[in-house]
Amino acid sequence: MNRQELISQIKKKKSYLCIGLDTDIEKIPDHLKLVTDPVFEFNRQIIDATQHVAVAYKLNTAFYEANGTRGWESLRKTLEYIPQNCFTIADAKRGDIGNTSALYARAFFEQMDFDAITVAPYMGEDSVKPFLLFKNKWVILLAHTSNPGSADFQLIESKVTDRRLYEEVMLKAQGWAAPDQLMFVVGATQAEKMKHIRELAPDCFFLVPGVGAQGGDLDIISSNGMNRDCGLLVNSSRAIIYASAGKDFAKAAANEAERLQRIMENHLTTKELL
Amino acid sequence: MNRQELISQIKKKKSYLCIGLDTDIEKIPDHLKLVTDPVFEFNRQIIDATQHVAVAYKLNTAFYEANGTRGWESLRKTLEYIPQNCFTIADAKRGDIGNTSALYARAFFEQMDFDAITVAPYMGEDSVKPFLLFKNKWVILLAHTSNPGSADFQLIESKVTDRRLYEEVMLKAQGWAAPDQLMFVVGATQAEKMKHIRELAPDCFFLVPGVGAQGGDLDIISSNGMNRDCGLLVNSSRAIIYASAGKDFAKAAANEAERLQRIMENHLTTKELL
Repeated sequence: MNRQELISQIKKKKSYLCIGLDTDIEKIPDHLKLVTDPVFEFNRQIIDATQHVAVAYKLNTAFYEANGTRGWESLRKTLEYIPQNCFTIADAKRGDIGNTSALYARAFFEQMDFDAITVAPYMGEDSVKPFLLFKNKWVILLAHTSNPGSADFQLIESKVTDRRLYEEVMLKAQGWAAPDQLMFVVGATQAEKMKHIRELAPDCFFLVPGVGAQGGDLDIISSNGMNRDCGLLVNSSRAIIYASAGKDFAKAAANEAERLQRIMENHLTTKELL
Repeated sequence: MNRQELISQIKKKKSYLCIGLDTDIEKIPDHLKLVTDPVFEFNRQIIDATQHVAVAYKLNTAFYEANGTRGWESLRKTLEYIPQNCFTIADAKRGDIGNTSALYARAFFEQMDFDAITVAPYMGEDSVKPFLLFKNKWVILLAHTSNPGSADFQLIESKVTDRRLYEEVMLKAQGWAAPDQLMFVVGATQAEKMKHIRELAPDCFFLVPGVGAQGGDLDIISSNGMNRDCGLLVNSSRAIIYASAGKDFAKAAANEAERLQRIMENHLTTKELL
């Protein structure tokens, strides 16, 4: 999906919601555990119930790899089930030397047909570039993440530039790719810094995880993070997909997704994007 | 495998060679392409031919993921085929927020039974710690990698400590884990800095990729990087597994592996480790 199509989906659905299908086999309702592929069946029902408000779905590969070959198969089937008008993200946080990153690109963009993959920046330019060779495919580079450990290295200040590591990552990466192939991961728990972070990359989309279970504030993120094309995909995983542990899990997920969509519609209206 | 067993294997085989099974389906000899699982068959023959001199095998997950579910199955089968007396490394460069890293740990240490996994440090402590909860399992943290992009961020100097990012990573991580669960990736192309890097982590093992195709110097690495327990696993991938493109590929791999082992035996002798 290209940038223009993504923006058009945001306007159509009046939403910049990304739903994280972080489906843990141990957390899905009991009545689903009898079918052949419980993880896929859970995802299928969540997708059916939420696709009218979800602009994107993000699949964190860890949850699938934890189930071995079978999990990898659930991942593939889920991806294929997601409607064409939704942006799909492999939250894989990959990154390796050039010739190896090229193989990860093959895995996620050819073997599977994700629109985007999250990439860890530690290994630098040649670890990122192979993903950019695929037309209309996206790299979503980790910038400032939502977890407690984000302070360990991402905040180190450079003696030479006075910039912090995450700022260096954002500025340097914009020399590698244009905003039609490059997004950044900015944790919702960094909401207070969102205005500053937006200045570092005025045109790029941000994938913002950490709303919901991790406590990030959707209003602050939206007020301070939006650009003239919206420029945000705000992700919620656990707060949506585990909104109920019962048979009504898909309905409960829809309710929570719709609640977030209404807040997002307000912000889009305020910024005159609708 | 615990630290003592690893050291004892090094002394027994007079080698600190790690062989990277970076098996690209497009590069394996034609006569193998007719079997059910050519990648596994290739690996099986390489393992049979080299296990007398290989202390460790490293499987880079990218090469397997590029073949989809089938690739994941080749990975699993290869791991199971590797003899118990060899140390096994999932070169996966994973790392995510705490609860998600826990699932990667489940994937590589429970679903599969690797001894170690490579981890990217960008997300900090909570992305690393879940892997350490598994007894006798290892985290091999990226410190200073072998690729050109390693200079992009790893060399940034902190205003506060005067230390470079890779140095910060090495010092901080030693507060999270002891040398019986923590190794560092130090690229062989960083050979000139090896003496300094060894001072940063006197007791930890280093996994050193980049000898062979990437041009790192085994002699300099060995002279400057060894500690009193050897402390090195030097990896070669392409130069061994693709030593010949013909039917004699396994024999050619063995020759190249034995050539490296002889150099290693010399260094171990010089340092009075044998």
